[in-house]
Amino acid sequence: MAKNPIILNKKVIAESSLFRIESLTLEFSNAQRRDYERLARGCPGGGAVLIVPMLDADTVLLSREYAAGVGRYELALPKGKIEAGEQILAAANRELKEEVGYGAKTLQHLKSISIAPSYLEHMTDIILATDLYEERLPGDEPEEIEVVPWKMDNLAELFSRGECTEARSIAALFLTREFLNHVDR
Amino acid sequence: MAKNPIILNKKVIAESSLFRIESLTLEFSNAQRRDYERLARGCPGGGAVLIVPMLDADTVLLSREYAAGVGRYELALPKGKIEAGEQILAAANRELKEEVGYGAKTLQHLKSISIAPSYLEHMTDIILATDLYEERLPGDEPEEIEVVPWKMDNLAELFSRGECTEARSIAALFLTREFLNHVDR
Repeated sequence: MAKNPIILNKKVIAESSLFRIESLTLEFSNAQRRDYERLARGCPGGGAVLIVPMLDADTVLLSREYAAGVGRYELALPKGKIEAGEQILAAANRELKEEVGYGAKTLQHLKSISIAPSYLEHMTDIILATDLYEERLPGDEPEEIEVVPWKMDNLAELFSRGECTEARSIAALFLTREFLNHVDR
Repeated sequence: MAKNPIILNKKVIAESSLFRIESLTLEFSNAQRRDYERLARGCPGGGAVLIVPMLDADTVLLSREYAAGVGRYELALPKGKIEAGEQILAAANRELKEEVGYGAKTLQHLKSISIAPSYLEHMTDIILATDLYEERLPGDEPEEIEVVPWKMDNLAELFSRGECTEARSIAALFLTREFLNHVDR
């Protein structure tokens, strides 16, 4: 594998409350140079969690929430930002309580995934949540989030519908199904 | 399902050659108002394609390429932007020839997926490419892209390694495996 390119120049060219755009000049190991733009993570150390809450061995809980990026309601796994100083698993349990109304006695880190690695610095940690119990924390959502139980043996129907399109949720559901099929239940 | 919120205000707050950041004020059907930021698609109508090139019924071709967003080499499916006026399947075949050195006699649209629907407008079309033949087009890559054949019955090992992390590639590989398992071969 080639060596990572050298960063010759890196600067912030635009910033908002949520985003920071950086320009980069890179020199590759073959001496070729290229300019890139990327979106850096907003806050230092800030990451995101995506939770796979299993109500029982066969049923996952999805949430239907308005997605401002694409401008429509999306059926997806619950997710949210890790707050400053917060542990990953604690962030997952907090988001689960805020968005879905459950806590989890067991939380397992399945994988860290990237979103668009060529231009986004962001990573998302996938957390499997099992042994659920009812507990709700107040969130900052503008309206109540609809929770939709879905059978894990029927993912094909979920993905054939137009309202579950998010790459992270699709990847996490398949990874969970693989993981659960290889664990004694 | 709730009605889509009304957009009370929308403006561009920062722009670079690759990104356009918009702020939105939305009013939900329960009269709650919230401010959002989202990343709009750069060029009008501009989308992206992600190609699943099948060398044979069991072997997919991955590419190992430097990813400037996360700052390391990533093993993923080939992908790229749809150019102005270009058809989706033509864009997929062009990117395949540029990045992997193959063209495809058969191109099928599997699904349109979103990346981070709460703050990115972007969608990516997943294109299954079969009946490959050797043909290379010059691309604008700074260095030769390493092409890595991978067996579809060994995705678990691919995802357990640290260098294949992209949610879109993971989702597309699983969706392809499901699709191929339900098609007569």
